[in-house]
Amino acid sequence: MSATRDCPSAEDVFRAAERLEGVVHRTPTFTSRTLDSLTGAQVILKAESLQRAGSFKFRGASNAIASLSEAGDERGILVWSSGNHGQACALASRDRGREAVIVMPQKAVAVKVAACRGYGAEVVQFDEDATTREVLGTEIARERDLVIVHPYNHPAIISGQGTASLELLQDHGKLDFLFSPCGGGGLLAGAALAASALAPDCRVVGVEPETADDAARSMRSGTIQSVSAPVTIADGARTPCVGELNFEIFKQHVHDIVTVSDNQIIEAMRLLWERCKLVVEPTGSLALAGLLSGQIEIPPSSRVGVLLSGGNVDIVAASRHFG
Amino acid sequence: MSATRDCPSAEDVFRAAERLEGVVHRTPTFTSRTLDSLTGAQVILKAESLQRAGSFKFRGASNAIASLSEAGDERGILVWSSGNHGQACALASRDRGREAVIVMPQKAVAVKVAACRGYGAEVVQFDEDATTREVLGTEIARERDLVIVHPYNHPAIISGQGTASLELLQDHGKLDFLFSPCGGGGLLAGAALAASALAPDCRVVGVEPETADDAARSMRSGTIQSVSAPVTIADGARTPCVGELNFEIFKQHVHDIVTVSDNQIIEAMRLLWERCKLVVEPTGSLALAGLLSGQIEIPPSSRVGVLLSGGNVDIVAASRHFG
Repeated sequence: MSATRDCPSAEDVFRAAERLEGVVHRTPTFTSRTLDSLTGAQVILKAESLQRAGSFKFRGASNAIASLSEAGDERGILVWSSGNHGQACALASRDRGREAVIVMPQKAVAVKVAACRGYGAEVVQFDEDATTREVLGTEIARERDLVIVHPYNHPAIISGQGTASLELLQDHGKLDFLFSPCGGGGLLAGAALAASALAPDCRVVGVEPETADDAARSMRSGTIQSVSAPVTIADGARTPCVGELNFEIFKQHVHDIVTVSDNQIIEAMRLLWERCKLVVEPTGSLALAGLLSGQIEIPPSSRVGVLLSGGNVDIVAASRHFG
Repeated sequence: MSATRDCPSAEDVFRAAERLEGVVHRTPTFTSRTLDSLTGAQVILKAESLQRAGSFKFRGASNAIASLSEAGDERGILVWSSGNHGQACALASRDRGREAVIVMPQKAVAVKVAACRGYGAEVVQFDEDATTREVLGTEIARERDLVIVHPYNHPAIISGQGTASLELLQDHGKLDFLFSPCGGGGLLAGAALAASALAPDCRVVGVEPETADDAARSMRSGTIQSVSAPVTIADGARTPCVGELNFEIFKQHVHDIVTVSDNQIIEAMRLLWERCKLVVEPTGSLALAGLLSGQIEIPPSSRVGVLLSGGNVDIVAASRHFG
């Protein structure tokens, strides 16, 4: 895949939004005086936790599958995913009557595995010490003639994810800052594309766990850096490195990447549950943790968008961290 | 107070809605395929957990205080409340620059006490073995010339609470069923008034904990029955009996009262957190628990509204029940 040739544009995000109308939820946004007083800013939360299948990943998955259908390709799909991309593809496949095979590590959060099966997908779990999801997934896809839908390094995935930020900017006008979690970089790249078109002065900030700081290092060095099996509560951001397409977009339209500790993530998650009454998963709390970390100076009364990327979390396990 | 003379009408609910425009959140509604498949119905959740101050109580409180201002009465207010009415009155008072004194049992949920103080109210806690909130509250109100705002047996409270159901019916058209929690009966009476005007064929169902089944017994006997210090996880429904005004409205416009166990409440709460990604408190989960209990026969594809009354809950304590 040539990064330059295949890189999606803001135009692709607009096209994805048309394609996804009536398929994805236009998720609600929330304000919170608690967050405003903590930051001195006007904070607007975009709750992708309330998206179908529980995360923004449903946007990219639906866009990718709809794009395949438009191209006349009706094969089953195969995806590898620590969870949300899998759930999203499982549901998007069911929506369109397609077969879906989800390759997941044995350690994947149980509720995410169950949800994929609940959406009718076949889940193949594997031992991370024995193989990688890429190797196993590629093998199964070849044997069974399935289309691999990469979780983030994929033009239709990026432009689909961008529709979350597009909605936020359409519904709330220009923002001064837009904070997004960063794992493989689909949501952040999509946010950057949407902001480049609708709010060119908006500062786009990616947030990743400090133990999985590959994107921050990549931006500093100018080349994609990787991380190996990082330990963090933010399971959706344990990706080894950002995608090539994603990184091309980062270099053009992302202004900062900051990192936060697991304690900062837990603190943000607790605020979201307790004060905002929204169940948001650890990865989904990254962007708020980044804002609250104070690493980016926010002038008073700035308008700050925060992407809450998902809500698929083991309630009991997560709440133990609050205790 | 004469129940017949002071009883609010549907017209009062419409007036309250005008008064509250721009003051209360028009809370979002949610659908869930999980709930639809569990019930065979089309379930619409009205998330008052996302209301200002975390519950529907803010509607009644704001309406009552605005009504006082319209009548030229600018005295401070005093309320007794296990929590949500207190928080709501604290915030509604702060909105309008009024003094607020909240009388709460010593056993009140800590996060609710803290929230009242956070909104600038004075909290007076008392020992439930030594006095009652009514006795203590009435005494303080007389000494300090404060207006008592009753949590449910009050025309402006009932009509204010009714605006939640009014919005639900305006936004989603006629419903076949409307399930509401029932503690003192403010939310349920308001729902019944709104439905009587906008959806006269809608069956209005109140749900209370089985240990606090005073409303069910009252409806059966035709006179107000009471319960003494019931033990239930639904702390907002521990009221000794429904109000006189509320009961008048129940007799005209409420069709059924069903009761549920704490386990059923916890199960409903877990579904809301885990599948719907909404933090809803135990009392706020009563209506869903009532629907899922199967006591009311729901014909297939019925349109069923469910009021999620609030989200003010100690996250750690509540999630222990899931473990």
